[in-house]
Amino acid sequence: MSNNLLKGKRGIVFGALNDMSIAWKVAERAVEEGASITLTNTELAIRMGTIDELSKKLNAEVIPADATSVEDLEKVFAKSQEILGGKIDFVLHSIGMSPNVRKKRTYDDLDYDLLSKTLDISAVSFHKMIQVAKKMDAISEGGSILALSYVAAQRTLFGYNDMADAKAMLESIARSFGYIYGREKGVRINTISQSPTMTTAGSGIKGFDGLVDFSNRMSPLGNASASECADYCIVMFSDLTKKVTMQNLFHDGGFSSMGMSLRAMTQYNKSFENDFKDENGNIIYG
Amino acid sequence: MSNNLLKGKRGIVFGALNDMSIAWKVAERAVEEGASITLTNTELAIRMGTIDELSKKLNAEVIPADATSVEDLEKVFAKSQEILGGKIDFVLHSIGMSPNVRKKRTYDDLDYDLLSKTLDISAVSFHKMIQVAKKMDAISEGGSILALSYVAAQRTLFGYNDMADAKAMLESIARSFGYIYGREKGVRINTISQSPTMTTAGSGIKGFDGLVDFSNRMSPLGNASASECADYCIVMFSDLTKKVTMQNLFHDGGFSSMGMSLRAMTQYNKSFENDFKDENGNIIYG
Amino acid sequence: MSNNLLKGKRGIVFGALNDMSIAWKVAERAVEEGASITLTNTELAIRMGTIDELSKKLNAEVIPADATSVEDLEKVFAKSQEILGGKIDFVLHSIGMSPNVRKKRTYDDLDYDLLSKTLDISAVSFHKMIQVAKKMDAISEGGSILALSYVAAQRTLFGYNDMADAKAMLESIARSFGYIYGREKGVRINTISQSPTMTTAGSGIKGFDGLVDFSNRMSPLGNASASECADYCIVMFSDLTKKVTMQNLFHDGGFSSMGMSLRAMTQYNKSFENDFKDENGNIIYG
Amino acid sequence: MSNNLLKGKRGIVFGALNDMSIAWKVAERAVEEGASITLTNTELAIRMGTIDELSKKLNAEVIPADATSVEDLEKVFAKSQEILGGKIDFVLHSIGMSPNVRKKRTYDDLDYDLLSKTLDISAVSFHKMIQVAKKMDAISEGGSILALSYVAAQRTLFGYNDMADAKAMLESIARSFGYIYGREKGVRINTISQSPTMTTAGSGIKGFDGLVDFSNRMSPLGNASASECADYCIVMFSDLTKKVTMQNLFHDGGFSSMGMSLRAMTQYNKSFENDFKDENGNIIYG
Repeated sequence: MSNNLLKGKRGIVFGALNDMSIAWKVAERAVEEGASITLTNTELAIRMGTIDELSKKLNAEVIPADATSVEDLEKVFAKSQEILGGKIDFVLHSIGMSPNVRKKRTYDDLDYDLLSKTLDISAVSFHKMIQVAKKMDAISEGGSILALSYVAAQRTLFGYNDMADAKAMLESIARSFGYIYGREKGVRINTISQSPTMTTAGSGIKGFDGLVDFSNRMSPLGNASASECADYCIVMFSDLTKKVTMQNLFHDGGFSSMGMSLRAMTQYNKSFENDFKDENGNIIYG
Repeated sequence: MSNNLLKGKRGIVFGALNDMSIAWKVAERAVEEGASITLTNTELAIRMGTIDELSKKLNAEVIPADATSVEDLEKVFAKSQEILGGKIDFVLHSIGMSPNVRKKRTYDDLDYDLLSKTLDISAVSFHKMIQVAKKMDAISEGGSILALSYVAAQRTLFGYNDMADAKAMLESIARSFGYIYGREKGVRINTISQSPTMTTAGSGIKGFDGLVDFSNRMSPLGNASASECADYCIVMFSDLTKKVTMQNLFHDGGFSSMGMSLRAMTQYNKSFENDFKDENGNIIYG
Repeated sequence: MSNNLLKGKRGIVFGALNDMSIAWKVAERAVEEGASITLTNTELAIRMGTIDELSKKLNAEVIPADATSVEDLEKVFAKSQEILGGKIDFVLHSIGMSPNVRKKRTYDDLDYDLLSKTLDISAVSFHKMIQVAKKMDAISEGGSILALSYVAAQRTLFGYNDMADAKAMLESIARSFGYIYGREKGVRINTISQSPTMTTAGSGIKGFDGLVDFSNRMSPLGNASASECADYCIVMFSDLTKKVTMQNLFHDGGFSSMGMSLRAMTQYNKSFENDFKDENGNIIYG
Repeated sequence: MSNNLLKGKRGIVFGALNDMSIAWKVAERAVEEGASITLTNTELAIRMGTIDELSKKLNAEVIPADATSVEDLEKVFAKSQEILGGKIDFVLHSIGMSPNVRKKRTYDDLDYDLLSKTLDISAVSFHKMIQVAKKMDAISEGGSILALSYVAAQRTLFGYNDMADAKAMLESIARSFGYIYGREKGVRINTISQSPTMTTAGSGIKGFDGLVDFSNRMSPLGNASASECADYCIVMFSDLTKKVTMQNLFHDGGFSSMGMSLRAMTQYNKSFENDFKDENGNIIYG
């Protein structure tokens, strides 16, 4: 169903890999809401994933680009304006990866070259994208730029590793650049802090299943899905949120405002049963 | 222009006084987006303001009610369901008033009976409204409840007085009840923290003009208007934000994330010119 | 062991009930650090608890007072100055109680007269205390006022009920009054947000044991004890923190900055074992 | 005056340049409170500043080191333990510099190699320092690690540039590592967010004077000085704050909790006088 929220708007979606990707859902919904878009991802991700399928379905061109390369980003903005026929109204940054996590380097044994890569891919790429766009004057007055974040930027979750620091920096970039791009061109820059989501990226994180369950039981509305996240992105791209900027917006079923829910606590308390009961449920007296 | 975001939805708007009111704009926009609504305010506000005009324009019935009275609130929810033909999908709480401010009692000379009234009108009324609705099971599954707040809940602004404490409590109620109503009925409860707005209520605050100017120069997108706030409310009432709950959402052109802008600082620095320079720009040595 | 951090200082400690109370520990430590103090609590609490024992031990007079009564508070500040021989340098507010919790009224079934009492006892009493002190000019230049809070002011914990809203208001009062008392007399006002603590008050809360265990496993340093909290209060009363004001200071072993710890997650995950495995560790297929 | 708060403790102070440095004051106070310490800074800073003077005064050895070099950091921890005769109890990280600011690159024209340096010097160095210390098991059980931060990590201040992102990352590192080092060795890691301070580093920032004045008038207790900051650091190094970790502690006279003070607003409002009045105070009608 469409509300024509993005009618006539032009957008660029970074980071769709396959149909589990949040970026994939955002692309679909953006087109459904009347936007014309381009898609972009690295050569590797294009090969590994199924973005071509999305491209066909949405009639949206794929521009291969490495978001850590200023040159590539210039190409993305130049070609997108050419293809779409004008300045860009919205951009989604859905990019994040930690080579330290991949190499199973724990947070107290980081490789600093890899940390540099984590930051470059997951945070600095956001700055580059915006700086390139601003220098090219590629975003239209009142445009909207979004990046996806996670509550790890505020609170430590074991195993999330150096991605937490990257997300903290990502959210800071949204504020820092939101000020400048806002005052000069009325461009909004925000991050959406999404529930843990079963994307290809998410699944890579240690103990992710348990975390997803805990997060779900903690959140009064349950975890937010990728599709629901796409809806929220649409809203933030639309003209109905023109004065929202420099914000980190939690889209998480309430998780970020929870200290402890009854459901999670009940589940947690079950964990002690094993310790004290035998297989017949009788209490074992030590 | 309409996006049919609230098509078929039923809503109640508390607190419209006149066409400067945010609640007034929300009512207009809600109907424009396809909702049918009822309006409510106190007898006094109905007489002092022009809500009947709005009522006619929108074909929306006015139900007189004191939001601090549980009985009156029960009437509002009962009649609204009757009039609108079903459970309520969204509610706006735009109510706030400090008798201490009115009586020019400073924060270090509060009258405690008046403080009680400030809290009852500006914060507890929100709890009452929700408790009444929940007991009557008057809100439909996945409904959305909003209250308007201000950054004074987080940061002290001189002259805002005991309203700051009331807003802090209001935002806490959104979290506390958001948890319960969320887990049981999927109902979202949020607050929108709006720029200082030139409503009849806003104008009552000491030094409000200077504050509005400062706030405007600090915010990269400038202060958000009442109309823009209404747009944001629509979005939060719509089905596109179904997993956002227990949040305080800043709608302020970026103010809340600013420490100091160049525009505000430049203006501020001008204040020193008078002190040290004569009319020819020469420094005056005292 | 003493560091003479409060040598020559005069203080008032509100809220010691028995030797489990944080206020009790603060009183002991304050005297140990060289302060002379008075103690105060309600007549009822004095009878129910063992404050007289503390009074003897510390040679500190007990002034019976209801902290919701302005008159009683005036008496406390007048007598304390008289007894201690000068203006007061520090005050601890360790007061909180919810009649709704006591009467087992859930948050969606609050009695509003009781809510009024919760607020009056747990939050407004803090304002009254400060307003009375300021009107009497009873606090010395650069003095320090502290109240004890809990993370429920920021995040919802099931069962904490209307105390969450009271704590949010309490922290707001610290900011609001901290501004005024700071600019006029250099008086600091802060709150310390303490780990769940096994005091007589704490034990009253539903499911408190499980919460304490979860909180302990989430916090890298474990829960903070009442004694450790007393140390932190001493520091905040001392001259070494003269520019810290309007802050809520977490004293919780890191809990407030945690999203999920390995220890808590491991315990949580155990809860699923029962459901899916038999006594031999084989998965049970339902 | 000493309270013997650090009696018998061993510490390392990074970042003292000259007697305006906060690190300088911390070093002085730490020794005064009974600690034995080593000092460290880069070769360049040692030549440019006057740290040798401090070294003599405190009888504290200077270990030249580049905090971005893991090797140098290993040397610092090895030598410090050797010199001081045991494991380290506290560490101060007072390091920050933006080559982009120095080269007058604005935030929308960053050089990315320089950004990399800003991050490496101002944030990653903190991680390296802790990782090195942990691998060498150089910090004693319950030790305390501190870094200095600024409110720019939360709110954008024009001209602070990429240092804002670095500070956001710095504070994230404190949380991320605070979790790990806390659970394993009881080591606390916090940041102190200090008022703008007229150090050699501070003075380099564009429009710093005006900002310092504004900040001072906004803060009810005025800006916190370097000496006062040193007192707060001592407190955080002492055994009285053993359960405080993963926190960002504002030491700013209340600035961070202010939205607008009467003093700042009054000054701000003066700025409009010039525009509308002539030298005789008569209003000029345009």
